[in-house]
Amino acid sequence: MISRTPPVYIAVIGGSKATGGILPVAWQIGQEIARRGAVLLCGGLGGVMSTAARGAQEAGGVSIGILPGPDRQDANPYLTYSLPTNLGHARNVLIAHSADGLIAVDGEYGTISEAAIALKLGKPVVGLSVTWRLEGVAMVTTSQEAVDLILQRIKKCGV
Amino acid sequence: MISRTPPVYIAVIGGSKATGGILPVAWQIGQEIARRGAVLLCGGLGGVMSTAARGAQEAGGVSIGILPGPDRQDANPYLTYSLPTNLGHARNVLIAHSADGLIAVDGEYGTISEAAIALKLGKPVVGLSVTWRLEGVAMVTTSQEAVDLILQRIKKCGV
Amino acid sequence: MISRTPPVYIAVIGGSKATGGILPVAWQIGQEIARRGAVLLCGGLGGVMSTAARGAQEAGGVSIGILPGPDRQDANPYLTYSLPTNLGHARNVLIAHSADGLIAVDGEYGTISEAAIALKLGKPVVGLSVTWRLEGVAMVTTSQEAVDLILQRIKKCGV
Amino acid sequence: MISRTPPVYIAVIGGSKATGGILPVAWQIGQEIARRGAVLLCGGLGGVMSTAARGAQEAGGVSIGILPGPDRQDANPYLTYSLPTNLGHARNVLIAHSADGLIAVDGEYGTISEAAIALKLGKPVVGLSVTWRLEGVAMVTTSQEAVDLILQRIKKCGV
Repeated sequence: MISRTPPVYIAVIGGSKATGGILPVAWQIGQEIARRGAVLLCGGLGGVMSTAARGAQEAGGVSIGILPGPDRQDANPYLTYSLPTNLGHARNVLIAHSADGLIAVDGEYGTISEAAIALKLGKPVVGLSVTWRLEGVAMVTTSQEAVDLILQRIKKCGV
Repeated sequence: MISRTPPVYIAVIGGSKATGGILPVAWQIGQEIARRGAVLLCGGLGGVMSTAARGAQEAGGVSIGILPGPDRQDANPYLTYSLPTNLGHARNVLIAHSADGLIAVDGEYGTISEAAIALKLGKPVVGLSVTWRLEGVAMVTTSQEAVDLILQRIKKCGV
Repeated sequence: MISRTPPVYIAVIGGSKATGGILPVAWQIGQEIARRGAVLLCGGLGGVMSTAARGAQEAGGVSIGILPGPDRQDANPYLTYSLPTNLGHARNVLIAHSADGLIAVDGEYGTISEAAIALKLGKPVVGLSVTWRLEGVAMVTTSQEAVDLILQRIKKCGV
Repeated sequence: MISRTPPVYIAVIGGSKATGGILPVAWQIGQEIARRGAVLLCGGLGGVMSTAARGAQEAGGVSIGILPGPDRQDANPYLTYSLPTNLGHARNVLIAHSADGLIAVDGEYGTISEAAIALKLGKPVVGLSVTWRLEGVAMVTTSQEAVDLILQRIKKCGV
């Protein structure tokens, strides 16, 4: 448990249609985030987002989903809290603003846009199992490394 | 405790510079929301927002602040979770989308804009100690009435 | 023709389903705005928005529609330029930010939200044929009065 | 002159601090866009944005700047029309929605976020003098090629 108030917010961003080996990775990241006492932010939909939220839930953690549509019914069932925005892809920018650091898992253009805005805002971004490359995204190979590194970089940012 | 998943989200909207008799009303609304097991949403700043969040916190409840600026430091200290959006007044529209129902306490143009969008979206809005009038806002005189009525109307909406 | 650069931007806000006597009023406002050399802003859809844009077009003026949806096809055919935003009702806040002054004709909750945000931003708002009341909205009875008054108040604001 | 109504909208995105050889490229792109009768969209600030707008202006074309801040005074002086949004980086998403196609010149994270959202929306993106790479961005080496290619791809998209 991180002894701080307010909590650290880590966004897990990535593909809504991720499958296969990606999903256990997302689940483990959710678990790790919860174990460290951080809040998991995500886009609230499926794939990486729902699997990470499930990981957090199963470890007793808290997740908040920031949804692109107007309807809470679209939220995945593992979120502790869900916030429909009706802003479409502009909700990606919200996630970058609300997170202290971001972990990208898989994902395509939407994920890249979130990572790019976060880097523009000076926030740390870690990548795992991503097929794209963006300067400034620190690549790691395990879930534990991802969460270790993002927390370390968030601390350096003085959050 | 409301036995439902996901929780009901009640936004408390109102003046960031409210003073005097308004603040105990906001505090009591926060307390009532927490006691019913609902999540309190607000704009995350001072006045009605911080006092309602304090009421919720002191009753063991959860509050989420959706901030207009880019900086979590601007959040009031009573929020359980805070989400900086950097969207300025457009965050008012987010609050209307994320709430199942809204309680307006005091407030001026910003509060009216939130109430108007919520009514446009078909969501119930209750008003207490407001000096403005907007058709469709149900006026009440006590904090308990406000929370009773908003929960009753939310149920009718089938949330 | 107002001899200034950049141009003055006047938003015409109001009901997308306005009918009857409202439409000639909206058309005349569009005509007046064009004759003064101002740019007409609107939400880009039907009713008051399309009729005002038609008025501006027929007087040789320029109109810009800021659309709530993602699709330019939804724009009314009288706009000189159309900008789909996919922001839903949050585009109302954009109109308030982009306008130097606003004229409300008819309209309901959406229109009230735009007027309220504009007033919050310190921008002049004039109302014509509206059934609602909002403190700070100057009521007039003719199209010419509406445009005269909004231009006069914009000048006082030093735009 | 493209004989169509409504006009084609081409966004020129890129660095607000671009210097040196980048600027003549941006200027030429603005010229080319204006010559083809398309509307130039941009973020309204300096560097690539202002230089492209100047190019369009000097060729008699029209440019619209969608500004991140609340203040029209921040617009570069070459825009035909300017729209302050106060949405911060979320205005990047607006540009992607409002453009039929985008030309990226130089630029960093903000530009990448715009390109990524546009590609997500299925819109063509052309890159010129960019140091970053994003799958799906068609690289060209001259201003004329950039405008030729974007117009050709926009037509294929059936705009």
